[in-house]
Amino acid sequence: MILDKVNNPADLKQLSIADLNKLADEMRDLIIKKVNTTGGHMGPNLGIIEATIAMHYVFNSPVDKIVFDVSHQCYPHKILTGRKEGFTNPDLYYKYTGYTAPEESAHDLFKVGHTSTSVSLATGVAKARDLKNEKYNVIALIGDGSLSGGEAFEGFDNAAVLGTNMIILVNDNDMSIAENHGGLYSNLKLLRETSGKAECNFFKSLGFEYIYAEDGNNIEKMIEVFNKVKDTTHPVVVHMRTIKGHGLPVAEQNKERFHWIVPGMLDENNELAEMNFSDAPTYESVTKDFILNKVQQDSTVIAVSAATPGAYGFTKDFRDKLGKNYTDVGIAEEHAVAYASALAKSGAKPILSLLSSFVQRTYDQLSQDLCLNNSPVTMLIYWGGISGADATHLGSFDIPLISNIPNIVYLAPTCKEEYLKMLDWSVQQTQYPVAIRVPSSNLDETGIEDKTDYSVLNRYSLVEEGKKVAIVGLGTFFKLAKEVKDHIKNEMGIDATLINPKFITGLDKDLLNKLKADHSVVITLEDGELNGGFGEKIASFYGNSDMKVLNYGALKEFTDRVPLDELYTRYRLKKELILDDLRAALK
Amino acid sequence: MILDKVNNPADLKQLSIADLNKLADEMRDLIIKKVNTTGGHMGPNLGIIEATIAMHYVFNSPVDKIVFDVSHQCYPHKILTGRKEGFTNPDLYYKYTGYTAPEESAHDLFKVGHTSTSVSLATGVAKARDLKNEKYNVIALIGDGSLSGGEAFEGFDNAAVLGTNMIILVNDNDMSIAENHGGLYSNLKLLRETSGKAECNFFKSLGFEYIYAEDGNNIEKMIEVFNKVKDTTHPVVVHMRTIKGHGLPVAEQNKERFHWIVPGMLDENNELAEMNFSDAPTYESVTKDFILNKVQQDSTVIAVSAATPGAYGFTKDFRDKLGKNYTDVGIAEEHAVAYASALAKSGAKPILSLLSSFVQRTYDQLSQDLCLNNSPVTMLIYWGGISGADATHLGSFDIPLISNIPNIVYLAPTCKEEYLKMLDWSVQQTQYPVAIRVPSSNLDETGIEDKTDYSVLNRYSLVEEGKKVAIVGLGTFFKLAKEVKDHIKNEMGIDATLINPKFITGLDKDLLNKLKADHSVVITLEDGELNGGFGEKIASFYGNSDMKVLNYGALKEFTDRVPLDELYTRYRLKKELILDDLRAALK
Repeated sequence: MILDKVNNPADLKQLSIADLNKLADEMRDLIIKKVNTTGGHMGPNLGIIEATIAMHYVFNSPVDKIVFDVSHQCYPHKILTGRKEGFTNPDLYYKYTGYTAPEESAHDLFKVGHTSTSVSLATGVAKARDLKNEKYNVIALIGDGSLSGGEAFEGFDNAAVLGTNMIILVNDNDMSIAENHGGLYSNLKLLRETSGKAECNFFKSLGFEYIYAEDGNNIEKMIEVFNKVKDTTHPVVVHMRTIKGHGLPVAEQNKERFHWIVPGMLDENNELAEMNFSDAPTYESVTKDFILNKVQQDSTVIAVSAATPGAYGFTKDFRDKLGKNYTDVGIAEEHAVAYASALAKSGAKPILSLLSSFVQRTYDQLSQDLCLNNSPVTMLIYWGGISGADATHLGSFDIPLISNIPNIVYLAPTCKEEYLKMLDWSVQQTQYPVAIRVPSSNLDETGIEDKTDYSVLNRYSLVEEGKKVAIVGLGTFFKLAKEVKDHIKNEMGIDATLINPKFITGLDKDLLNKLKADHSVVITLEDGELNGGFGEKIASFYGNSDMKVLNYGALKEFTDRVPLDELYTRYRLKKELILDDLRAALK
Repeated sequence: MILDKVNNPADLKQLSIADLNKLADEMRDLIIKKVNTTGGHMGPNLGIIEATIAMHYVFNSPVDKIVFDVSHQCYPHKILTGRKEGFTNPDLYYKYTGYTAPEESAHDLFKVGHTSTSVSLATGVAKARDLKNEKYNVIALIGDGSLSGGEAFEGFDNAAVLGTNMIILVNDNDMSIAENHGGLYSNLKLLRETSGKAECNFFKSLGFEYIYAEDGNNIEKMIEVFNKVKDTTHPVVVHMRTIKGHGLPVAEQNKERFHWIVPGMLDENNELAEMNFSDAPTYESVTKDFILNKVQQDSTVIAVSAATPGAYGFTKDFRDKLGKNYTDVGIAEEHAVAYASALAKSGAKPILSLLSSFVQRTYDQLSQDLCLNNSPVTMLIYWGGISGADATHLGSFDIPLISNIPNIVYLAPTCKEEYLKMLDWSVQQTQYPVAIRVPSSNLDETGIEDKTDYSVLNRYSLVEEGKKVAIVGLGTFFKLAKEVKDHIKNEMGIDATLINPKFITGLDKDLLNKLKADHSVVITLEDGELNGGFGEKIASFYGNSDMKVLNYGALKEFTDRVPLDELYTRYRLKKELILDDLRAALK
């Protein structure tokens, strides 16, 4: 294998173009096999193999600095920068994260997993270089999909006036995660159709030198292009056309489906494998049924997403069915919230879906555009909770982030019945911005209709009335609360009270006050960061009383692919550990 | 006066052009007088009088919907929409807020005070209109300065593909709050110089129809322009050239200084009044001295701001002195944080200044670009604290926002000596992102050198050791803590312990544990929202003990120009009220 000779980028420079092409084929095979085994980003990485080889052939990383955007497309880079074992050796398939990670290699500058950051970061790298009177190339690699994010634009706008070396490589595969949305993409299309010759040019309008590279999947041609811009003395944009999923026909034909895949999507012929997906209902499927049903009844109901429809099961078919009652705003979470707020304020009924980790991209819009205006938007927050995810995609921060903003009602259902009741109430009401934390679990059905009137805010559900100890289990951790209750009963003979709070954003002061009569300890359990979260508010509430309060949740930390069970132990989120703490508190 | 005849926009339609011009002069005089009395936004409002008259002459508000950006330029609109008394009657000068406010008028759609939101909001208004099969014009009014904000770009990108009526009025006065920064502004310049005829056109690149309006301060011409775009069936951008401060020569000549003025800037001749500003040192002035000094010693030190240099006293002169060691990124807080993170990661020493209210615009960048990468940036947070400000500019949320993000060290100095010591430590260290909450108060000097080693994190300062009661006074509320201590001594004879925690982001567990020996109540005082803030963490810490904890700070609410004393009473932030609570807790 050619790859045997390549341990770092310098080794590439010894190879002929023919060998570089062979190397690309080898890398393609490795990536396909690895990603089909572990799951991961398939299409973006297959599309960027040739350009990555050319980039490392021409530039001199890590002296020259390459900043990846979102880093969905860093696998070829990892293979060429000392980490090929993570692709050649199945035992080491999980050794490296799917994102750039400075702790893995000097060739990775930043830990990155959210989009639209590369140009901004690269501008800082270049400015530091200039302040230190150093000389090297700074390259930002950004996909067309990421261009729609506000931070990307702010970065481009500032990079353009840097006045010194800065190379922005726009990898245009004419796709975001799903299809692109936004006026900018008509300009990219025009530029592709005119081989970059159209006068009306987004990048030129910002002041960049602009180079169009038709053959982004051709190593030899990309080497020529990169040689042209290397050591440039001013900001330049290379608009490079590539094919998402390049070299894997099924991925080229199913670009959205092959953006990120689960393990086993391909059979031995690299065709779509027959996969037996369960057709049991999920939180995603009941949400889709709910939305379709609502839209049929009320043409002002509108689903809104921001470039990750697949995460909610919003398939092409579902999106087409919704038609004008669906907007994907592209990677533009800030706009998504402001847009939804204005829709609601103008009498429509928006249902905005966002992932917990990406809600972070829109704090000010939640506060100013949405909550200050008290617009009755329904937000569905997916993937919230403690998880073994990569540090860039944790779901532990949404409760502190959302719940300390005034006016919003943040709800935590524990089963299908509660969830659908909350959803229905939220869409119909006109008083509050409402967010619902959609459980990241199998669909739990109780079979019992939820008759709660959610317009009476902050009324917790007293599920089982006991004595001495009360356990408050929020959302997905209500199940753990039940386990803890049973364990306490078995081990200590105490019949604890069990509470399902449902409301993250407020305290049921009546209930909490009543507990004072015959309870001495309250235990709170929340599936997210403790700091700034739900339980601390209960501790503060009881601060002037004799009630003891034990808060359980995640510590304030970025965890990186730590197994969930290990995290639960670390956070004492286990019935045995909680029992130990309880015994100590009752002493 | 012509204005006597104008009580709502419909009245304008009866007037001749000559009378409309007279009306503009009357409005100009009223605005100058009012703003010079109360303080407020002068230049932006003077520049938009004629266009506002033309807009209300042509369109039919509130059936047609006008969405203001940041609403620094809404005074003429307020005068024409039933609120002229706020400008004609000095007794009512404070009746209306300086921002758009739906509670004041049906002509105001949103409560807005942060920039770059109008296009995004207007897109939602237009989409709701379309879903409801209604017909009216939707107009967004955005200044050139606001175009650099990411949310604005996301809005433009999505507005462009709306496919129906949407009119974006870009009010180009070639100024942000200070001068503009960014590549986009070279395109606006090109468009102004070519009367909009240049082929390379930012707005056209996004797919908009584009109309250039040279005479934004000419009512008759703007009526023509607006008549042309009224009832358009697709998204259109009107690029309108205006003069900031139009009609007030001193404001036209000093655009930055007259963006927002304090009362009394003008004398009776509408010239610059002689004002006696104190030259006593302030937190702003010692910060500037510190930065200049550091830059002289170390050419990698760089000050960064995001379009509000004036708020920190970063005058033109100061900026010029810093030269390449200063970047104003324009209205682009997201970029500011990512840029600073990359600067720090690449070995430079960035000092980023932001206002508390605008830190909100950059949560994800704080979390992902900065803290996840653990970049040693120094952030200075100004204007944090409970205040009588407009609901759009509150400083009560930065502690919950910043302090629950992992890795960052957030510091709260109580005097000049601590502040400068923290600042110096922060700039020199390379381990953590650090934020310092610059007190919004006069400069307190103790004269005593601060010898704290801030690299030992989360060590609180035990200022006075007492018994039974401990008072933890964070940052600006340390003074209140001292008052409370004295009051408790006088009234109850208890010699309370006094603690200056300095660190917002962590608990001094040793000290807190030691207090258990001879204290039964801990009182926490923080100048910001209690929910998710500092004190709740202390309540949670003591949850398993007998220690009682009384947390004081702001409630979770948007307050709108409520006098500070009223807020302090509401939040029980008064020594007498705290004493009452303490007596109850000690019972």
